Amino acid sequence: MSGEKGYVLKEADLLPLSLGAAVLGTGGGGNPYVGRLRAREIMRKGASVRILPLDALPDDAWIGRVGGIGAPVIGIEKISQGEECLRALRAIEEVTGVRMAALIAAEIGGANAMAPIITAGQAGLPVLDGDGMGRAFPEVQMETFSIYGETSLLSALADAKGNVVVFKELADPLTQERFLRSMTVNMGAGAGAAGAPLPMEFVRRTAVPNTVTQAIEIGAAILDARAKRRNVIERVVEKTGGALFFTGKIVDVRRELKGGFTRGHALLEGMDEWNGCEGRIAIQNENLVLWVDGEPKVMVPDLIMNLELETGEPITTEMLRFGQRVAIIGMPAHPLIRSERALQVVGPKAFGYPELSYTPMEYQPAAE
Amino acid sequence: MSGEKGYVLKEADLLPLSLGAAVLGTGGGGNPYVGRLRAREIMRKGASVRILPLDALPDDAWIGRVGGIGAPVIGIEKISQGEECLRALRAIEEVTGVRMAALIAAEIGGANAMAPIITAGQAGLPVLDGDGMGRAFPEVQMETFSIYGETSLLSALADAKGNVVVFKELADPLTQERFLRSMTVNMGAGAGAAGAPLPMEFVRRTAVPNTVTQAIEIGAAILDARAKRRNVIERVVEKTGGALFFTGKIVDVRRELKGGFTRGHALLEGMDEWNGCEGRIAIQNENLVLWVDGEPKVMVPDLIMNLELETGEPITTEMLRFGQRVAIIGMPAHPLIRSERALQVVGPKAFGYPELSYTPMEYQPAAE
Repeated sequence: MSGEKGYVLKEADLLPLSLGAAVLGTGGGGNPYVGRLRAREIMRKGASVRILPLDALPDDAWIGRVGGIGAPVIGIEKISQGEECLRALRAIEEVTGVRMAALIAAEIGGANAMAPIITAGQAGLPVLDGDGMGRAFPEVQMETFSIYGETSLLSALADAKGNVVVFKELADPLTQERFLRSMTVNMGAGAGAAGAPLPMEFVRRTAVPNTVTQAIEIGAAILDARAKRRNVIERVVEKTGGALFFTGKIVDVRRELKGGFTRGHALLEGMDEWNGCEGRIAIQNENLVLWVDGEPKVMVPDLIMNLELETGEPITTEMLRFGQRVAIIGMPAHPLIRSERALQVVGPKAFGYPELSYTPMEYQPAAE
Repeated sequence: MSGEKGYVLKEADLLPLSLGAAVLGTGGGGNPYVGRLRAREIMRKGASVRILPLDALPDDAWIGRVGGIGAPVIGIEKISQGEECLRALRAIEEVTGVRMAALIAAEIGGANAMAPIITAGQAGLPVLDGDGMGRAFPEVQMETFSIYGETSLLSALADAKGNVVVFKELADPLTQERFLRSMTVNMGAGAGAAGAPLPMEFVRRTAVPNTVTQAIEIGAAILDARAKRRNVIERVVEKTGGALFFTGKIVDVRRELKGGFTRGHALLEGMDEWNGCEGRIAIQNENLVLWVDGEPKVMVPDLIMNLELETGEPITTEMLRFGQRVAIIGMPAHPLIRSERALQVVGPKAFGYPELSYTPMEYQPAAE
């Protein structure tokens, strides 16, 4: 084994991975709790999952993508059968005649960090250290693979009742999103999804790299700081290469379910060095924009992490409550999702803020 | 060619076929007009479609089923791309690795009589003389193939924009109906559908036989009677082996779109020997039950044909209007759709009339 690249995931990695994935979920992406339990169960039954760097496999190896799709709240309430993603993956393999050499997460943020690990454990495959978002985004065409010209939209959905639907030809990525979303609703609002096989050469160029390891390290830093009673927020800032943009108290939450997404905003009353300032976070499943005193400070695709001040526990948008004391950390998005091409899909205008031109968080004007 | 079984469809067969198919549609099944034009166009370009009796092919030949799915009104308003069913069929062939030896109509009644003929012309295949309903029914699990134990629910949908969705595994026939219906709505409420390949041995036992020829003969009888100014209704009664159950004037129509279906009823004021009587027809896309003076006279699955009195033109449920003078002809359903097993799916109780026990139209008590 010593000659092999990467590392075998240990059971002890699962808690930090799920915690770090929730941080990278920036308020969305669903709760990785159930997925972590399932991954643990599979490991205890003897499954071994190796995390491989993006340079480990040959150019022509085929990479599979799996993930859960559906309303995040359903991911907690509806118990999955456990092999949804595996059956979706097998359907893709059967239809294409391709066998996958490894899996990759479509989305590292939130519950979908766990999906490829569970499926890889079931299928006896390794998992690549990277993903298609470097965070969480609400729609499938927001993957870097889609942004950077994946030509096949082939995808499959499987549900807990044994239904498997293959989207064999799709006119465009928006049709893919619309068809998959609608079929997921028919499947009880939660399903396992698999995408077209991707050649390793393409994945190496277009995946956000090292995000599995990054998530584990962020989670481990939080757990370590908690255990040693150190400042958790400082550790997260350090580990993410981010910056603290606000600390304060949630004083108002406006939120509604609209078109299958949680939309709204949270208002914050500043504390510490932001005493007297007003913060505002716009949300669509994820945290999209942070304003301080009316000035946009961090905007999508940069990551806006809303953490409980004392514990560093990430607060998902559906858990926002009056009175929570939070730290808002901004983290620069990976260059792959900051490019002009990516911003057309995941920039502030694409999320319905025509008045905002994307400015990297590092270059925001100082508050006056 | 003389040694071959069956007959090659002529362009001159298309008009009687579409007319007879509309009669067998018993008010539903959509209008075959656009399909007839498309079939004619394909024939004029040189396609030749042979109609084969059910004993022509060996037991192990594979039979494909195609048809349009969607709201009938859309079939008229939305111009199809023309190869929807062919692409759905090809998807089924690719996924199963099976090549079809012939096609069969899922439903002879209405527009779906034309779908296999068009697709067969495009694919260079023959069409079997028979179908899976012997009439029109509103839902896919109402096919005899489904009723008599088809085990695979594999199906595919294709739309005008190039989208192709394969339903690879489905938990049960009701899920099939629900998933296909919902995806069809996403595809703009109209799509081409193909079902799992059926072995010829199974089709021979479970298809309603000779219905393509029957539709042509009914249509030809109507056209002939019109040309010779004979009584059209008498000719239809003769050709269908049915009976005239009412003549009268439509005096009220209640109709609403509910759950994707046209539901409601029509009231009729009797004429001729029914002078002073009241007729009532319940509809769910198709004509379901005929009552005369409160007595059920003909009920589903027996065929209730509502024809314009003078011309014999079949009146679809969405075309019902005050003042139309009509003849209501009952035709005994084929034994395959009158069996106890079939009645559980297509009997009056299955259509929401718990108070009606199916009585074959031949055994209805005479009106008092």
